[in-house]
Amino acid sequence: MPSRELVIGFDADDTLWHNETIFENVHRRYRDMLAHYHDAATVDRTLFATEMRNLESYGYGVKGFMLSAIETAIELSNGKISAAEIRELLELGRAMLAHPVDLLDGVADTVAALAATHRLILITKGDLRDQERKLAKSGLAQHFRHVEILSEKNPPAYAAVLLRYDVAPENFLMVGNSLKSDIAPVLTLGAAAAHVPYPLTWAHEHVDELPPAAGRFFKLNSIREVPAILAAL
Amino acid sequence: MPSRELVIGFDADDTLWHNETIFENVHRRYRDMLAHYHDAATVDRTLFATEMRNLESYGYGVKGFMLSAIETAIELSNGKISAAEIRELLELGRAMLAHPVDLLDGVADTVAALAATHRLILITKGDLRDQERKLAKSGLAQHFRHVEILSEKNPPAYAAVLLRYDVAPENFLMVGNSLKSDIAPVLTLGAAAAHVPYPLTWAHEHVDELPPAAGRFFKLNSIREVPAILAAL
Repeated sequence: MPSRELVIGFDADDTLWHNETIFENVHRRYRDMLAHYHDAATVDRTLFATEMRNLESYGYGVKGFMLSAIETAIELSNGKISAAEIRELLELGRAMLAHPVDLLDGVADTVAALAATHRLILITKGDLRDQERKLAKSGLAQHFRHVEILSEKNPPAYAAVLLRYDVAPENFLMVGNSLKSDIAPVLTLGAAAAHVPYPLTWAHEHVDELPPAAGRFFKLNSIREVPAILAAL
Repeated sequence: MPSRELVIGFDADDTLWHNETIFENVHRRYRDMLAHYHDAATVDRTLFATEMRNLESYGYGVKGFMLSAIETAIELSNGKISAAEIRELLELGRAMLAHPVDLLDGVADTVAALAATHRLILITKGDLRDQERKLAKSGLAQHFRHVEILSEKNPPAYAAVLLRYDVAPENFLMVGNSLKSDIAPVLTLGAAAAHVPYPLTWAHEHVDELPPAAGRFFKLNSIREVPAILAAL
């Protein structure tokens, strides 16, 4: 049984394990592939625009990214991209899905220690099977009482999760790297949030402003600092 | 409050609304596109083999289907498929995701009537966002107390759902069109199952044999027959 009622939610990608670095490597190879058609900035900007246009249809995750990357490659090459190059994109995508899970520094110890005293919930978005596979590979699965893979991480989605597990917002702390997906929505609900930045942030996850949250918002340098802030809650 | 303790699970695709017909239309256009390379049977067989090879990576749903269709088109055309044709495949996929939701006959009345007396759970697999969108479009969302979108519908996955909602297998009836995904796994757990066949079945959903389930397995012609079997449970 948890020693106290505080429930802790953890984001997964770029909070527990590296993810954006994998995308960044793929972006680099993608720019190289299209370098004889356009400069890197145009490639990045057009791919991002395609992803945003398709987000409502595809949702988050590697498969939607791959489809948008193929579409953008056709567009930017004026249809001159070869079938062999598209096959290479498909292989890049499958390599992303098969990539080993590299935990961030401090995650294994901190999550294990917190699981001994608190109920932990993994709350992530992306492809269902991909996220489940990463959790299984991570070795962390046994520490999470519940796992929620959401199609969007906004206030109604978090409210539904808290309702499902009978957790009052004032008893909930969310830990994550994305101000937009992990921090702002839970602060809006009246819960607490701990931001642990990752060196890279996908442009879509940028946020201009956080809701007012005196005493409920913590800016950390490492996940190792989470136990120390629990006393303040 | 439900008038009795029986909880009813419903599959979604081809149980509540048409789905395989949409795939079948896309398959037809796909065969046409590749007709100058291979006959229809070869196209179908190769696409299915690609889907099965990629299933562990991609999981179920439209996005994985699209990626496998692009891969197969490159393979079957020996790389001669054009960028314009691949763009057409991407558009076919997006049209699938944007397709209206057509309820099967009897679904709206039956689900509404059962929701008035029983707790209903939607249990489906596929792309997270696509399934949520179809449920929203269906007009049925308010009838389901819970919604579970799973990466796989096997006995452990159903057992986890029943545990989550505190439902004993003997108090659970699953209704669906797939013997493999909706019927066999719940019979294995000791729950009851009602099979409502759909005119088309994806090859992956075929099953050779059902577990023994005297008195717990019902073969129906229409979802309209579900209320009549409840007395037997």
